[in-house]
Amino acid sequence: MTVPATSAADLKSESVRSLYDQLIVRLKDLTHLNGISGILQWDQEVMMPKKAARARAAQLSTLAGVKHEKKTSPVLGALLEELERRRNNEDLSAVLNPYELANIHLAQQDYKEETVLPSEIVKAIAALNSKAVVAWVEARKESDFSKFAPYLEDQVKILRQKVAYMIQGGVCEEARKINEKARTSLGLTETDECYKGYYQVLLDGFEPGFKDDRLQALFSDLKENLVPLIAKIQAKDFQHDNSYIVADFDIKQQTEFTQRISKHIGFDTDAGRLDVSTHPFTGGAHPTDVRMTTRYTVDNFKEGITATVHETGHSLYEQGRSKEYRDTPVSRSLSLGVHESQSLLWERMVMLSKPFWTYALPLLKEQFTDHQTLQDITVDQFYNAFNRVKPGFIRFQADEVTYPMHIILRYEIEKALIEGDIQVADVPALWNSKVKEYLGLEVPEDSVGCLQDIHWSSAAIGYFPTYTLGSIYAVQIFGAAKEAIPGLEEHLAKGEFHVLKEWLNKNVHEQGSLRESGDELVFDLTGKHLDSSLYVKYLTEKYTAIYDL
Amino acid sequence: MTVPATSAADLKSESVRSLYDQLIVRLKDLTHLNGISGILQWDQEVMMPKKAARARAAQLSTLAGVKHEKKTSPVLGALLEELERRRNNEDLSAVLNPYELANIHLAQQDYKEETVLPSEIVKAIAALNSKAVVAWVEARKESDFSKFAPYLEDQVKILRQKVAYMIQGGVCEEARKINEKARTSLGLTETDECYKGYYQVLLDGFEPGFKDDRLQALFSDLKENLVPLIAKIQAKDFQHDNSYIVADFDIKQQTEFTQRISKHIGFDTDAGRLDVSTHPFTGGAHPTDVRMTTRYTVDNFKEGITATVHETGHSLYEQGRSKEYRDTPVSRSLSLGVHESQSLLWERMVMLSKPFWTYALPLLKEQFTDHQTLQDITVDQFYNAFNRVKPGFIRFQADEVTYPMHIILRYEIEKALIEGDIQVADVPALWNSKVKEYLGLEVPEDSVGCLQDIHWSSAAIGYFPTYTLGSIYAVQIFGAAKEAIPGLEEHLAKGEFHVLKEWLNKNVHEQGSLRESGDELVFDLTGKHLDSSLYVKYLTEKYTAIYDL
Repeated sequence: MTVPATSAADLKSESVRSLYDQLIVRLKDLTHLNGISGILQWDQEVMMPKKAARARAAQLSTLAGVKHEKKTSPVLGALLEELERRRNNEDLSAVLNPYELANIHLAQQDYKEETVLPSEIVKAIAALNSKAVVAWVEARKESDFSKFAPYLEDQVKILRQKVAYMIQGGVCEEARKINEKARTSLGLTETDECYKGYYQVLLDGFEPGFKDDRLQALFSDLKENLVPLIAKIQAKDFQHDNSYIVADFDIKQQTEFTQRISKHIGFDTDAGRLDVSTHPFTGGAHPTDVRMTTRYTVDNFKEGITATVHETGHSLYEQGRSKEYRDTPVSRSLSLGVHESQSLLWERMVMLSKPFWTYALPLLKEQFTDHQTLQDITVDQFYNAFNRVKPGFIRFQADEVTYPMHIILRYEIEKALIEGDIQVADVPALWNSKVKEYLGLEVPEDSVGCLQDIHWSSAAIGYFPTYTLGSIYAVQIFGAAKEAIPGLEEHLAKGEFHVLKEWLNKNVHEQGSLRESGDELVFDLTGKHLDSSLYVKYLTEKYTAIYDL
Repeated sequence: MTVPATSAADLKSESVRSLYDQLIVRLKDLTHLNGISGILQWDQEVMMPKKAARARAAQLSTLAGVKHEKKTSPVLGALLEELERRRNNEDLSAVLNPYELANIHLAQQDYKEETVLPSEIVKAIAALNSKAVVAWVEARKESDFSKFAPYLEDQVKILRQKVAYMIQGGVCEEARKINEKARTSLGLTETDECYKGYYQVLLDGFEPGFKDDRLQALFSDLKENLVPLIAKIQAKDFQHDNSYIVADFDIKQQTEFTQRISKHIGFDTDAGRLDVSTHPFTGGAHPTDVRMTTRYTVDNFKEGITATVHETGHSLYEQGRSKEYRDTPVSRSLSLGVHESQSLLWERMVMLSKPFWTYALPLLKEQFTDHQTLQDITVDQFYNAFNRVKPGFIRFQADEVTYPMHIILRYEIEKALIEGDIQVADVPALWNSKVKEYLGLEVPEDSVGCLQDIHWSSAAIGYFPTYTLGSIYAVQIFGAAKEAIPGLEEHLAKGEFHVLKEWLNKNVHEQGSLRESGDELVFDLTGKHLDSSLYVKYLTEKYTAIYDL
């Protein structure tokens, strides 16, 4: 696995194939190291004894240093530079296939992103994150925004510095254009402060290739259509009975039931594990070693099954990644939004549907034979109870109709913050007014308002939109599956999930990062770009029926 | 954590303290990487899904490469060289304390061992181990030594090459002397083959600083005294009833009971975990993150409690390592033998004693209230049943009287093999004749004879003696504890284990690798070198009483 140290000059005489092979050896080494980080992080959440926190932090920090060295190694740089020179002078596609070309492209992007930041800023970001998360935990506990505000100010400042380096370093051409245009139209010079386009860079970090102006348009459309839909449901002043779901469900039996469902959907327990943690997540080391977690609530059956099916969707993506290009960048998931589409497709399009419960309700009744009320429930009743809509303060507890509003308000605030249109001090009032406008609720305190999420404290600005992009992708990808698979709903009603899983394996999971954006993937699958109206249509039809609107 | 790249010339102007501090930064980085390996290995045995084996091997191989790079880095070499130059010219103990001096010494040894072997031989050893273990599994399954013999021949050859490099590189002065003496007395030239002293190098890898001629003497004495003792017990033709131990014990209840005992002994569950695996072991990442495993047998209560207490002994050593010198070499365990002494001290001196069961038998009866026969058993009866002596073929199932014979025969064979006194083909017959001589048994087939252990297939020649060194250390260290702690046995009978644990923490665990050998530690604790007669005395007195000899 060792590549002899090479200088750019030595490489000039080598074939493209040989350069590519040398590149791949180095990229696979990085994949292995990332896999190790994945296991350490999983272990930290699920297995690690509590006194080990400090030692684990030191291990992860050493490993991060090792990865940074490998990611920025001069030999890697020389290989990529030479491949770029060849690309400019000859037709690489005569020698390399599209997956191999994508590997070079992704490796070049990664290298640029890793080398463009001075190491002082990388360290400063890591140090700030540790402190800011601690401050956020404290601030949320006391519902006191002033305790978090200084850290959020620092996050905004340091993120702007980071973005400036990235724009200068040519990491995000789109952002550079936006910024230049804004400067021209405002008559600003190069030394004037102007943060327009900065959000685009952050968004790119989570949803590569997705343009912020398209996001803006999608979100405006959703807002315009969903606010009235939510109001209409609220106006009905009616709820389906869900008492048989919020009754007591023994945890051990819930575990058995959800494990059975997860396996039946297609989770390969020989290539992964399902455990329990405080916050459900999917991680791990490799397509053959996927670690997902869930959590159970004794007095609410819906939470455990929802978390399990959601994470199973993520896990199927990971387990389904390309075998042929395993351990190389092209096999990795395309974006956070596309990843979320796979969890939401199984959670919402499948698990929240009548066909699913036609299959699963008899199994549930079998599992909980002692649960008397449940025994008499019909699929329709169960379906209605599982699909209650009710505006609330907390994002992660929201139903699929109100969820986008939580995301849109965060998007609007974080973008305005980073681009300098509002100040940190404005956040709580602005948050509360948006919750009132979009969801019709009065926020009683910041702990259930602008302090509820960890994201901003850990510099994850630009992350929130991927949740809602994921739900739009999910609707369109499921639509494509329905067209491609005759009788899909009948299959689901019989528990024949493999037909859907295999289609997703082929059309989404194995495609990896071959394309440049999730939008491109959706276009290739459906002939349409990402389209909020399809999502609005799905919600409107579904909830018009459920609430008799 | 970054140390600026330094050349030996630059270092000449730096203070010893500054050189030492730079060294420690690098050594701690290595400790963190070793911790990561520890978690990956634990995960592999306890948690990993089976399809992940190949990916895990790739991760471990990449990590091994990273560690090798760091261990052999020229900057580390320059630091050590400069510290050695200073040591020759000035009195370092004016600036550094004994722990710090030990750190330099250990780092120099490690560096020498890591750099003395050409990378081809390191790779060849790794490759052979993988193949040889597979062949051994197959050979044992079919009880066919001929399937393993060629691999054992290769192991012997490659180990001899490795040892030759190590002697040449000055890693083991003792071995060089033995070899030179043998060549002189046999009239051999430098080009003649002569493997005398080679075993010393291998022994040093597991039991640093322990001389092979001392080992030879200890083992001769044990053989001389234990063979008659075993024969005497056999001649009694009597066994204590143990039917209440080999009855059915529910696994869940066994787990509860042994976890309780382990915690009571002093295992800190906030700084470690106890899980189940096929082969019990203690590993993990750090004194704050010790991972031990055990296994339970439903129809034999003794196996689960023995494995758990044994591994708890190992874990206490790990958890008890010096906080002040944490993450540096001096805090690591002194040798495999000393590590084994800690597991055997708790297993044999404590768990197999009457005081222990005076405390634990009532708890056991409480745990298994439904176990009728057990309810009427006295501590004496239980003690006798737990201490049955019976020669058998399998080493890891052996009692404390016959166990040393298993080790001695392996020592005699592996030493003769490596030093060229016998051939691989001689092994089975020699093994069987020694089993007959030492234990009075006829080996029916090689699967329960010379093919039973994994060690030789994975090049662990020189490892076996540490098991028996550990049991001698254990007797002497426990003797020292008894002298130091008034009424120790009364404390144990009341379950006041902390008095013993704290004494071991201070006198063994926190001492780490401050001394050069386990023998030196025992001498400092007891005023006596390692002494087989004390071990013989312990066994003779104990079993004379049990078997009324």
